[in-house]
Amino acid sequence: MPVNSKRHAEGNKAAVLVAGSWGTALAAVLADNGYEVSIWTRNASQADEINVRHTNTRFLPKAVLPAAVTATTDMEAALRGAALALFAAPSSAMRAVAQSASRYLENDTLVIHAAKGFEAESLKRMSTVLSEELDRPQAEIVVLSGPSHAEEVVERKPTTVVVAAESQEAAEKAQDALINTDFRVYTNSDVVGVEVAGAIKNIIALGAGLSDGLGFGDNAKAALLTRGLAEIGRLGAAMGANPLTFAGLAGVGDLIVTCTSPHSRNWRAGSLIAAGGTLEEVLQKMGMVVEGVRTTRAAHLLAERYEVEMPITEQLFQVLFENKSPRAAVEDLMGRTRTNEI
Amino acid sequence: MPVNSKRHAEGNKAAVLVAGSWGTALAAVLADNGYEVSIWTRNASQADEINVRHTNTRFLPKAVLPAAVTATTDMEAALRGAALALFAAPSSAMRAVAQSASRYLENDTLVIHAAKGFEAESLKRMSTVLSEELDRPQAEIVVLSGPSHAEEVVERKPTTVVVAAESQEAAEKAQDALINTDFRVYTNSDVVGVEVAGAIKNIIALGAGLSDGLGFGDNAKAALLTRGLAEIGRLGAAMGANPLTFAGLAGVGDLIVTCTSPHSRNWRAGSLIAAGGTLEEVLQKMGMVVEGVRTTRAAHLLAERYEVEMPITEQLFQVLFENKSPRAAVEDLMGRTRTNEI
Repeated sequence: MPVNSKRHAEGNKAAVLVAGSWGTALAAVLADNGYEVSIWTRNASQADEINVRHTNTRFLPKAVLPAAVTATTDMEAALRGAALALFAAPSSAMRAVAQSASRYLENDTLVIHAAKGFEAESLKRMSTVLSEELDRPQAEIVVLSGPSHAEEVVERKPTTVVVAAESQEAAEKAQDALINTDFRVYTNSDVVGVEVAGAIKNIIALGAGLSDGLGFGDNAKAALLTRGLAEIGRLGAAMGANPLTFAGLAGVGDLIVTCTSPHSRNWRAGSLIAAGGTLEEVLQKMGMVVEGVRTTRAAHLLAERYEVEMPITEQLFQVLFENKSPRAAVEDLMGRTRTNEI
Repeated sequence: MPVNSKRHAEGNKAAVLVAGSWGTALAAVLADNGYEVSIWTRNASQADEINVRHTNTRFLPKAVLPAAVTATTDMEAALRGAALALFAAPSSAMRAVAQSASRYLENDTLVIHAAKGFEAESLKRMSTVLSEELDRPQAEIVVLSGPSHAEEVVERKPTTVVVAAESQEAAEKAQDALINTDFRVYTNSDVVGVEVAGAIKNIIALGAGLSDGLGFGDNAKAALLTRGLAEIGRLGAAMGANPLTFAGLAGVGDLIVTCTSPHSRNWRAGSLIAAGGTLEEVLQKMGMVVEGVRTTRAAHLLAERYEVEMPITEQLFQVLFENKSPRAAVEDLMGRTRTNEI
């Protein structure tokens, strides 16, 4: 048996799971950086489209992908020998995807995830789910977050993100793999803060969509975002995050881009609900995962568990799951009685 | 001489100086709250328009003002017996306006200002300028700030602001005078933080306008705002502010609304400069004070005085006053070499 027959991570192979808009955009970044990127998807026609036409029109209608980005429905083929594996599945699918991947992942493959949510029942963070399923130390799991619409990343518009891991070595490896002139990557060691901020800002974006959809205006939305940032910070602090994270790219940066840009699907879902759509109608109309909806349920439970006041989450919970009218919810948020700001 | 011949502040009279968009919108708020509001303006035809047609079309094209809002070119008439005087002059005119007002102001008139900038040569904050000219303790001068486009305030869209004074009594009086269902007012004691945040965010808005005007996208703008918030916080901390202020309405709230809303004239000035206009052309075209331009010069000097790193201010200074190309400035900001976020 030749010494090199053992499978090992190769320098220039990367795997991305799955082929949503964010996974696909990050695959393009990795290809720009010299990686041969294999995207795993369950959907054979989507894989064919990526391989033959170099497009993924359902998720990124205008993008043409680099030739070094290919796709496969064979998870083993995607992961075999990959120097890094980037998990960009929706949070609801992350455990199942990781469970399948655990069989094929090399021991020395760097694991990065780019999901923004909690596991539904357990309320676990994504790095915890990956650590459990991939049977590797949570300190080595890297989370990528920050203000980064996929649509702009594939256009090579300047974007800055954060990669966080307890292991500085892991974070720096991820930084090295992803950084280039258009895609600036900073390291951070606060995994809890980055994961909490990324998840909860989707709830605030739903609220911002409601407010905009009801015509409340920019002043009201800015006040909502300010309170949203405080709400993210309260939950994060209770869960052990570094407060400085919320003042950074993964905190206020991502909050701003998600709540003020027409690219944001959470914002869009909120605005469609304000226009009178039921949750089911809106989700069907959008045809994509709206992380903020599930995250609202999870955060509602986390607020109870950690005894943290989360008024925006609470109002959204009532709108989404208890038939509260959007207008009454936004008015309740605006009229909250408080007199001293700090 | 009858005992009541001494002039005194009456319960329901308010003065507003001057008749720009923000002063006019706040006059409408005060009128909604039962005040008889007298706006002082140098411009006789503007005063006539307000008195006869109840409009101020140059500054608020769509608004119809309450009948209780009147205007006068006679400063004594405006200030005589006023329970509160709201100074909403541009920062460059504040000292001259206050100097004139000092003659007529009652001893017990509550003084509030709503200006966002520093005095050009002295680099003094507006509450310092008012304290000096009106010869009253700075602790009693109230500053009003927060995410509040005048255009939305006159439409009675929900708005939340902060009133800050070292004297809690003064801040609470201002809160009582201004608060209503549509206009939520919170108190804060951090005058330095509120004044610094209100001034510097106009520089960040100019930068955001440059970035948007050059087509850099929402990801880049969110990164710029994140760094802008840090820049505001660094100068504020050096000047003695409470860091929590920057996470609040007068900090991140006002930053968001100023950098992401088409109402913002600082943002608009930045986008026009990105399109190739010279500073003179743009200021002429806009026909309104663009506080951020003067504030860039003041903040450039404050950064030196307090030895604070202010990269966005520095790039804007070079674009506005040293003919640096907007593209080179934004690229320099994006490419700043740093690896760890915190």
